[in-house]
Amino acid sequence: MSDHVAASAADALARAGALVRPALAEAVARLDPELREPAEHHMAGGGKGVRAALAVIGAAASGGTEREGVLGAVAVELIHNYSLVHDDIIDNDEERRHRPTVWAAFGTGRAIVVGDALANLATQLLLEDPTPARVRAAQLLADSTSLMISGQADDMAFERRDAITAEECLKMEEGKTGALLGCASAIGGVLAEADDATIKALTSFGLRLGMAFQAVDDVLGIWGEPKKTGKPVGSDLIAHKKSLPVVIARATGGPELDRLLASELSEDDVVEASALIEATGARREVMAIADRALAEALESLESVPLVPGYAAELVAIARFVTERDR
Amino acid sequence: MSDHVAASAADALARAGALVRPALAEAVARLDPELREPAEHHMAGGGKGVRAALAVIGAAASGGTEREGVLGAVAVELIHNYSLVHDDIIDNDEERRHRPTVWAAFGTGRAIVVGDALANLATQLLLEDPTPARVRAAQLLADSTSLMISGQADDMAFERRDAITAEECLKMEEGKTGALLGCASAIGGVLAEADDATIKALTSFGLRLGMAFQAVDDVLGIWGEPKKTGKPVGSDLIAHKKSLPVVIARATGGPELDRLLASELSEDDVVEASALIEATGARREVMAIADRALAEALESLESVPLVPGYAAELVAIARFVTERDR
Repeated sequence: MSDHVAASAADALARAGALVRPALAEAVARLDPELREPAEHHMAGGGKGVRAALAVIGAAASGGTEREGVLGAVAVELIHNYSLVHDDIIDNDEERRHRPTVWAAFGTGRAIVVGDALANLATQLLLEDPTPARVRAAQLLADSTSLMISGQADDMAFERRDAITAEECLKMEEGKTGALLGCASAIGGVLAEADDATIKALTSFGLRLGMAFQAVDDVLGIWGEPKKTGKPVGSDLIAHKKSLPVVIARATGGPELDRLLASELSEDDVVEASALIEATGARREVMAIADRALAEALESLESVPLVPGYAAELVAIARFVTERDR
Repeated sequence: MSDHVAASAADALARAGALVRPALAEAVARLDPELREPAEHHMAGGGKGVRAALAVIGAAASGGTEREGVLGAVAVELIHNYSLVHDDIIDNDEERRHRPTVWAAFGTGRAIVVGDALANLATQLLLEDPTPARVRAAQLLADSTSLMISGQADDMAFERRDAITAEECLKMEEGKTGALLGCASAIGGVLAEADDATIKALTSFGLRLGMAFQAVDDVLGIWGEPKKTGKPVGSDLIAHKKSLPVVIARATGGPELDRLLASELSEDDVVEASALIEATGARREVMAIADRALAEALESLESVPLVPGYAAELVAIARFVTERDR
């Protein structure tokens, strides 16, 4: 990634953050005090704000103003954060961004209700002043959330199943990660009343970007440097996660790999397992999937006329979130 | 309750159930298979379908057809059932309607996601063909769900606090139980494009009915017959629930009652505690609150012109759900 792209992405994220952060804080402040405290604890953990940036830059790229995208950015961030709060309970994760997760700090019950409240608030905000564009945005958000929930459900189902195909895994990731990034990319255009072709192209851009992002994330979950990922070496292997490289490797890896992956993994086992997975060609294959998905995402953007400067920022964000020092 | 009122309520519930049940089943069938199975397990437990009946009879009472209320009935039942699925996790309840709860049968993670899916489906259905009436219905549902969530949050907060006032308790119950019954009563009218005064009166009817229902439920939670409630004698006392009779009794009951209620209660303790609470006059006071709330509910109905036969059915349902052999 060139310095120029990195600077452009950083600038877009910072500008969008400055617009969205106050509106998001204002929204969360509307929650019941009992829920506001844990919600603010969660939000204070930060996050890059990629979805918020896609929404406001998406609005501007499709001919509107950045400000027109803010409500969509807030709604998508609320849905994203509700899913994180609930996922942390489901995955029994005690830390996120080096801070206790909501359930770890405030109990499972409160974490469930905080997630419920964030989800409902997103719909409430969009329908508060229900212009036709806002109704369409609420519709897009509900449909995308439905896909996200199905992806989450499939991911959970995989844990109880042995043989997963790469296609099933990709479909799961499309739902779990892609759907909401597709929504984030398009919702600003919806609010700015862009035409259907533009909305479709932006949705497809975000969806494919999500697939690329997830593929890179899966690679980092096995081969990422702990210093950069904040997780131990081979964290996905230790957690027995059926991520894309694992699924692809197991298709040709033989019973030895299966046995190793199913066992309690020592540090040495992790080194051995990741070497075995890499030897199947799975790492290279997943990176090729990421490259292809990113290329498709960028093609989608080029398929419609967008405001060039903002389109370039969408490209920069896409490169930024998929280029994580592989 | 006269036999006539009981028959009228039973007839309305049966008629509404016959209309709503297939539409509700069709909606749930749209869920990802991984979620559909636990959702159907939950739904098969039944339930009286009071909210569904209020929605379809509400549509007809305000000049529309029963059928116009069906989509609203489905949406409200989805929200009601999502809240039950999540509440069962929060309260650690292993059984509902003599069947294992979703988390007990399918695990906490799946139960969280099933609830999330039911909630989102409600919005999705209303916005699928977003006529102005459906958008208003979605708006009403999101606002009511927000109040319900706040009530749930307050209820959880009470567990960590010692002194709760009767006013705080009533406000909690208004959110937790009243808000969605208010929505159920009004959403049919909204879909049938009734005027604002009618919507307001129906909302207020359901809200006050919810308060009356909850007050009766709180009395049954202490003095109800196990044969009828399906719960042990004094179940709310055993669970240390700060229900309305407890809160009112503790305001004048003195330290002896406080100590007793805070302890692990034996069967004898339960008998003693319920007698002490009754001696403060709290049982009578809560029944008076229920009577007053029911009277206000019925007054709300009378404040606007409704189709008489259907209005009579709303009255019958209200009497039916608040008259539980006290």
